[in-house]
Amino acid sequence: MPPPVGNSGRMFAKSMPPVVDMSLVAPEDTCFMAEPKANELMEKLVSLCKRRGFIYQSSEIYGGINGFWDYGPLGAELKRNVKDLWWRTMVHHRDDVVGLEATIIMHPAIWKASGHVDTFADMMRECPLTKKRVRADQVDPLSGTVLRFTGAELPGEGGRIEKPVTVLMIKGDHVETVRNRARQLYVAAGSDKLADPGKVTLLGETAVLVQNSTDFHPESRVELTEPRPFNLMLQTYVGPIQSEENIAYLRPETAQAIFAQFKNVVETSRQKVPFGVAQTGKAFRNEVTPRNYIFRSREFEQMELEFFIRPDEAIEALNGSVARASDGGWKGEPEPNWGWEVWHKYWVEQRIRFYEGIGLPRSVFEEYWQKPEELAHYARACVDILYKFPFGTQELEGIAARGDFDLSQHEKHSGKAMGVFDEELRGAWSRLDEAVKARMHAGFVAAKTEAFCKRGTPEVEARQQAEMDAKTYFEKLSKGQFVPHVIEPSAGVDRLILALLCHAYTEVTETDEKGKVETRVLLRFHPRIAPVKVGVMPLLKNKPELVKKAQEVRDLLRPHMTVFYDDSGSIGRRYARQDEAGTPFCLTIDFETLGEKPEMLNTVTLRHRDDGRQERVAIAGLAERLLPWVR
Amino acid sequence: MPPPVGNSGRMFAKSMPPVVDMSLVAPEDTCFMAEPKANELMEKLVSLCKRRGFIYQSSEIYGGINGFWDYGPLGAELKRNVKDLWWRTMVHHRDDVVGLEATIIMHPAIWKASGHVDTFADMMRECPLTKKRVRADQVDPLSGTVLRFTGAELPGEGGRIEKPVTVLMIKGDHVETVRNRARQLYVAAGSDKLADPGKVTLLGETAVLVQNSTDFHPESRVELTEPRPFNLMLQTYVGPIQSEENIAYLRPETAQAIFAQFKNVVETSRQKVPFGVAQTGKAFRNEVTPRNYIFRSREFEQMELEFFIRPDEAIEALNGSVARASDGGWKGEPEPNWGWEVWHKYWVEQRIRFYEGIGLPRSVFEEYWQKPEELAHYARACVDILYKFPFGTQELEGIAARGDFDLSQHEKHSGKAMGVFDEELRGAWSRLDEAVKARMHAGFVAAKTEAFCKRGTPEVEARQQAEMDAKTYFEKLSKGQFVPHVIEPSAGVDRLILALLCHAYTEVTETDEKGKVETRVLLRFHPRIAPVKVGVMPLLKNKPELVKKAQEVRDLLRPHMTVFYDDSGSIGRRYARQDEAGTPFCLTIDFETLGEKPEMLNTVTLRHRDDGRQERVAIAGLAERLLPWVR
Repeated sequence: MPPPVGNSGRMFAKSMPPVVDMSLVAPEDTCFMAEPKANELMEKLVSLCKRRGFIYQSSEIYGGINGFWDYGPLGAELKRNVKDLWWRTMVHHRDDVVGLEATIIMHPAIWKASGHVDTFADMMRECPLTKKRVRADQVDPLSGTVLRFTGAELPGEGGRIEKPVTVLMIKGDHVETVRNRARQLYVAAGSDKLADPGKVTLLGETAVLVQNSTDFHPESRVELTEPRPFNLMLQTYVGPIQSEENIAYLRPETAQAIFAQFKNVVETSRQKVPFGVAQTGKAFRNEVTPRNYIFRSREFEQMELEFFIRPDEAIEALNGSVARASDGGWKGEPEPNWGWEVWHKYWVEQRIRFYEGIGLPRSVFEEYWQKPEELAHYARACVDILYKFPFGTQELEGIAARGDFDLSQHEKHSGKAMGVFDEELRGAWSRLDEAVKARMHAGFVAAKTEAFCKRGTPEVEARQQAEMDAKTYFEKLSKGQFVPHVIEPSAGVDRLILALLCHAYTEVTETDEKGKVETRVLLRFHPRIAPVKVGVMPLLKNKPELVKKAQEVRDLLRPHMTVFYDDSGSIGRRYARQDEAGTPFCLTIDFETLGEKPEMLNTVTLRHRDDGRQERVAIAGLAERLLPWVR
Repeated sequence: MPPPVGNSGRMFAKSMPPVVDMSLVAPEDTCFMAEPKANELMEKLVSLCKRRGFIYQSSEIYGGINGFWDYGPLGAELKRNVKDLWWRTMVHHRDDVVGLEATIIMHPAIWKASGHVDTFADMMRECPLTKKRVRADQVDPLSGTVLRFTGAELPGEGGRIEKPVTVLMIKGDHVETVRNRARQLYVAAGSDKLADPGKVTLLGETAVLVQNSTDFHPESRVELTEPRPFNLMLQTYVGPIQSEENIAYLRPETAQAIFAQFKNVVETSRQKVPFGVAQTGKAFRNEVTPRNYIFRSREFEQMELEFFIRPDEAIEALNGSVARASDGGWKGEPEPNWGWEVWHKYWVEQRIRFYEGIGLPRSVFEEYWQKPEELAHYARACVDILYKFPFGTQELEGIAARGDFDLSQHEKHSGKAMGVFDEELRGAWSRLDEAVKARMHAGFVAAKTEAFCKRGTPEVEARQQAEMDAKTYFEKLSKGQFVPHVIEPSAGVDRLILALLCHAYTEVTETDEKGKVETRVLLRFHPRIAPVKVGVMPLLKNKPELVKKAQEVRDLLRPHMTVFYDDSGSIGRRYARQDEAGTPFCLTIDFETLGEKPEMLNTVTLRHRDDGRQERVAIAGLAERLLPWVR
């Protein structure tokens, strides 16, 4: 998910409430502090996740670290299942996708080529006194009296400073406190030898009332500096010296490694375009305001596919025509005449089917097709798959058609050719009608010209540049060479986990035999992703025959699925515990299992989480019965 | 794998040849440059791994980045399989281990508590002129004439510098070049305004011959500074300001997160001591000299288990006695009377069985039991499981008995209690004979006293401190409270991958029908870890019936295992390709499959990698036939 040039790739940042940075270490219960009293569901969910061992705050015993979350025993299994199903669906179950596992730290030139070094930034403003920063679009509005000073006299070496300084005074502030802050600013701007702000004489004070101004730091109330870009990549040094040439970055996305290793994969995997390379793994972004639990954290995990396709001109040369999205067809199997539009729609459909397969029905999603003016200059189309989280409708996955931008950038920056050779295409091109070539040429030039104009090139120059590009491009095509185009379905693991938790969370209110009303929680996970597939329970733990039989059942199922063995408390209590953990099935081993009723020998009670339904099943048939659900 | 205090935890560093740092970016073919012409096998293996897509150099198109390696399509599958089998063995197939997935970046206080901030360092020496560093124990010895200058006159503001400066002159050096280097050193030490070393007058030159001195930088030949520690943790800043309080580290091991989250796991997982917490994940060490391919890289992956046990005193109180290692028994199932020695041996045995299960027989390992004087002060015992790599016998996994050191450190540093409460123990303690208590007390005090003395405390004080510790410890035990002790099997994924590749690598020499002798390579992976389990091949790709049937077979097996469909080239060529990829089984769909001989309808040829054996198997029985091998 490379960044749209010029912002940090977050479509929905504007709809978020203003928040100030809470510093590196935030106490556990402040994770939602800055949100408007978001909603009860999120609070309940966070509490359940902690209590049941799905998600803990990272480094909690040391007060936590803002923007980092750990997965506990149940969470780790849930995450494994989600990632594993993605890999099986995207890689193992297809002939045309292979995997890659690249390092988190790569050569810094990769991030120069991708645009991240120059443009993967948020606009930030700084308090010149405390040096604390806030995101320019997220400053809390303040009202009050602005005190503006035109300069100050500093005793001794400091001399006279003419620079104006502005501080806001809000209700409850003392004017001397505000003036003292101004003095401190002058001290900071003057000689470091002047430690005593009390000795500074302020000059030319004026006062103006302001309403809802976003120009002051919410804590110091000092006027903020002009917005400046703040790069979101975490930086480190590799090698024994912390020097400029040893700077390296923690990857802000997994995608670039796929582009950087594209040629190696093509040469060693026996794949031909169209084909894809998939990767899952950690990525890091130094978010100024991590928020919404695991939705936007500083360390997160991605599941990205780069699916490489032939450019439409090659398709036309090979097939006589290019199937368009309006022709339909993308719900079926890939066809040789698919152009990028159909491939793009195909991957949107495939991704939604994946979500359906893990229990998120199509109806919970919105597809947001980015408008032409929202697209980055290199993108042809981009769809966001949105999910309605309790804190707002947000992006779960983006599926972008990115043309040949990424591979071309790496070709330019590394000096290594990123194109592929297509024998079939070379043959087809030589047989191509001149009129068809001319039409393609005209279409290519028109599109390129428009793109250059959009980016500010005057029309005549844009056309010249487009003609030059067309020359190179069609010459290469005629030799069967091209730089593949790419469709990129890019999903976030952690936000998907959050969506799955939200969707699964169910409260049921029950009245027990004594008339007591109780609300309990079920996590209605699809069995495929449930951390534990089956709870195995002897009716009583002090009956060795029951325990022995229950352990046999456990050992029978364990090679095939995750089993939780539980022998403590009443059966009802044990069921409830498994409901809360999202376990879809429970098995109870009772005296009937042991043959109290001979016809029920070696059968167990199979209890279903979602409706509490119970049925009697033979032990011998258990694996066969449960496996189709959990695989 | 926390570091033994005072070095970077690498037992075998001393047996390594001296190597200088090769800077951030090393060209691909220098990865072994610094090793003595290691051996042919490694070269062949590296070449095969690149050619078949197991392992690529990270960021290769940009010249690579030293100490970072990517896994290509086959490597990514191999690594997935190894990690998955570890997880299934260590977590899913046991009742007493749960998983955790913590973040790579944690609160920096964790690394203070663990000792990494203060002691996870290599001793380094620096060239004062070029600022280049070398590991103190890895300086290339040089012989020649040492020129020593007692000072210099610098013209103008620089004045006179009295500091002595020493430079080595080796065979072929011009004496003026050496003197000029000395002048540059004086310029660097003097005023920066003095740019011209030519104007510096050297004072008091003496010459001495030296043999094999390790006091000079191999490139500049300037005398190195005294050794200083260089921390191996990669450092970054989290939050918008690069200030001291925002420093964070990339974890140098996964283990510490388990200790930091121990209380959360205990409280939420329904586990009671003895039980373990397992984690796999990336870790980072800023190795000065990454080397030996993926064996020692700067970004690597670990698989660590922390298995928490009761202290021996609690076992004795509960069981009347403590089983010792000399009693045997650790090959069986855990027993309540096991002390730490038996648990330690048990885990060594379990880990070796794991390796056996993925194709590395017991005979390829050496167990190295660290000698008492080699153990870190907190460690009770440590076994290294060694594998004979082509470049030397090296550690694959370490299994340490670490007492309660780690949890106690975090208790001390975080101020949060790390103990557990054991109801059973409280009861047992109250019934305990006074003589037994006295014996335990004496043993505890003696051991503690010895440990304190070893670390330099005078005996009387050591005894006093031990008595105080004993008081707290036994008081807690009597209330059923203790800080668990831990056994830590800690394995490196990447070095295991390398061992598996080395072990699997086999060359076979064959003579074809034309008498041509050909050597080809097989990777004899255990089917469980093989990246591709089965190659499916229609005899001819231009016969639609064969292709259709082959695709049916592929689709039949694909839900259960990784399948590679291959229809190009001769069958022999296709088999050879799969042999080289380590695929244990190939299936050929031919005309007999289609019923050319009616009795062979719907059967295929099953061909075995290791011996080339072929047999005829019914399609319907394939999954059942292959599954027991690949699961």
